[in-house]
Amino acid sequence: MAETSSKTEYYVGVDLGGTKILSGVFKSSIECIGTAKLSTKSQRGVEAVIERVARCVREAVDEADLTLKQVAGVGIGAPGAVNFAEGRVIFAPNMEGWKDVPLKKGLEKILEVPVFVENDCNIAALGVHVAELKAKPKSMVGIFVGTGIGGGLVINGDLYAGFNHTAGEIGHMVLDVNGPKCGCGNKGCFEALASRTAIFQQIKAGVKDGEKTLLTDMLGDDLSDMRSGDLRKAIRRGDKFVDKVVEGAAEYIGIGVANLVNILSPEVVVLGGGVMEALADEMMSVVVETAKDYAMPGTMKGVEIIASKLGDSAGITGGAVLARRGTK
Amino acid sequence: MAETSSKTEYYVGVDLGGTKILSGVFKSSIECIGTAKLSTKSQRGVEAVIERVARCVREAVDEADLTLKQVAGVGIGAPGAVNFAEGRVIFAPNMEGWKDVPLKKGLEKILEVPVFVENDCNIAALGVHVAELKAKPKSMVGIFVGTGIGGGLVINGDLYAGFNHTAGEIGHMVLDVNGPKCGCGNKGCFEALASRTAIFQQIKAGVKDGEKTLLTDMLGDDLSDMRSGDLRKAIRRGDKFVDKVVEGAAEYIGIGVANLVNILSPEVVVLGGGVMEALADEMMSVVVETAKDYAMPGTMKGVEIIASKLGDSAGITGGAVLARRGTK
Repeated sequence: MAETSSKTEYYVGVDLGGTKILSGVFKSSIECIGTAKLSTKSQRGVEAVIERVARCVREAVDEADLTLKQVAGVGIGAPGAVNFAEGRVIFAPNMEGWKDVPLKKGLEKILEVPVFVENDCNIAALGVHVAELKAKPKSMVGIFVGTGIGGGLVINGDLYAGFNHTAGEIGHMVLDVNGPKCGCGNKGCFEALASRTAIFQQIKAGVKDGEKTLLTDMLGDDLSDMRSGDLRKAIRRGDKFVDKVVEGAAEYIGIGVANLVNILSPEVVVLGGGVMEALADEMMSVVVETAKDYAMPGTMKGVEIIASKLGDSAGITGGAVLARRGTK
Repeated sequence: MAETSSKTEYYVGVDLGGTKILSGVFKSSIECIGTAKLSTKSQRGVEAVIERVARCVREAVDEADLTLKQVAGVGIGAPGAVNFAEGRVIFAPNMEGWKDVPLKKGLEKILEVPVFVENDCNIAALGVHVAELKAKPKSMVGIFVGTGIGGGLVINGDLYAGFNHTAGEIGHMVLDVNGPKCGCGNKGCFEALASRTAIFQQIKAGVKDGEKTLLTDMLGDDLSDMRSGDLRKAIRRGDKFVDKVVEGAAEYIGIGVANLVNILSPEVVVLGGGVMEALADEMMSVVVETAKDYAMPGTMKGVEIIASKLGDSAGITGGAVLARRGTK
């Protein structure tokens, strides 16, 4: 599409997380021209968070030397179950008080711009599909490994959310029915085995049991403020213990990929999220090998398993795509 | 559609299994008016099986007082990976020598009627969706529990086979990574935990370990010729051991349902296959309860989990639907 000088040719994508809010202003070609970042401060309550989201949108727009009047729409990904049609967040487990929140309505009142609300992983999958995958595969599974594990599905070329708009809740797929307890109350969920939370827990438990790791030299014995990037640094400096824990998580991610390939036969599986962004080089070969071991013969033929290069930008990119789609 | 007196208003559905071939003649309203059944005898080779399929089709047509000239198309479900466009069976693990078999071409040569080939579980899901579910849900997962476990997906109102036409391979979804060995070489696959094969193995192992069961009175100490229906009889006569084993399998089926609901958010989950046909009354309440326990909050709202009443007819019904669709 040729770009025009219309006053509303820009879109803002927002990634609302439990810890931080990211926003980005995009041209209609989905090129990013300005971003902003703000802490979420969900303890201040729902109203305050909605105002912070609006502030984060305004800051990105200012950063791009634009005004809100030039923004055609805002697309926002929220970390929980979403009613897309009504723009409501039904439930966001990591945000205090977020039950049945009319996010669309609240933001539109402040910003006076059309707002579209989606689940954060759905929107990240949309961002990867539209902005990163040149071949536009008809089917794609996005797996985002961070504090938890979430997924987004593209089926028949479009985002697929299913009957309750909850499709892609892959983090609570049971992989090991007798495995470690998950935050959801069940045992052996995908995210209880391979998320950052799971990896950090295993490392902390190991250190308690006397395992030697460079991480204690780097961060102190209590491993405070540990990040995924620290794990990468430790592994590259030859830390066998961290390497083993990360490899174990990569194996579970591979099993998760195989389950999803067996069930959905996607053309592309994309891995994203903070853990993959920091540790793709360390994890991807194990993920791919394990997935091939566990998938049924014939299901893996020609299937690409790749790490997204969008990193933290997948969410805001997908938000802009959603806004562009909604306002056209 | 009003029925006409056209000479080609009938469709034949075929369910090709490792043990038996079922065929059924259907009016275009998908009402069955004649069936036939033949043993597969796959040890006689691929050619012989194709000829037996053709014979089974002819016998059903004769049973319905029709001739082949009145049949507009034949739809056949094969137990393995299928190339739908070419009508080829890529691989059928339970049939001797079935690798890259041009089933469509072979049958069309003998019968001189258009033939359409699908995976057996896909076709059974299609049969259930079209002939059994009045509400025509936009999304449905069919889970067929028999010798193995297979699945078929309906997404956006239509059969979904995915990139490699292998979607729905749910029997090899890993549920218990340290669980019992599966025929595929992995451990803890859905079908290694809850198929008839898995249930029978657990019963036989229990008897070896000294468990008391009415089944040994009914069938002899070696439990030869045990069928799913025998388990139902034993449970209804108060057999605690068989009840426990069947309940365990039902729990795994519930976990499998929860995983699929988390991943796909279907409107309806239908359970079929020989095990469910024989034991639905014994298993369904446990399946539903366990699925609700394991699915994420919000994902189960309004979702129906039901046992199919089509039983063995799901496959031939879906075959007729496929043939009707292909020839219109």
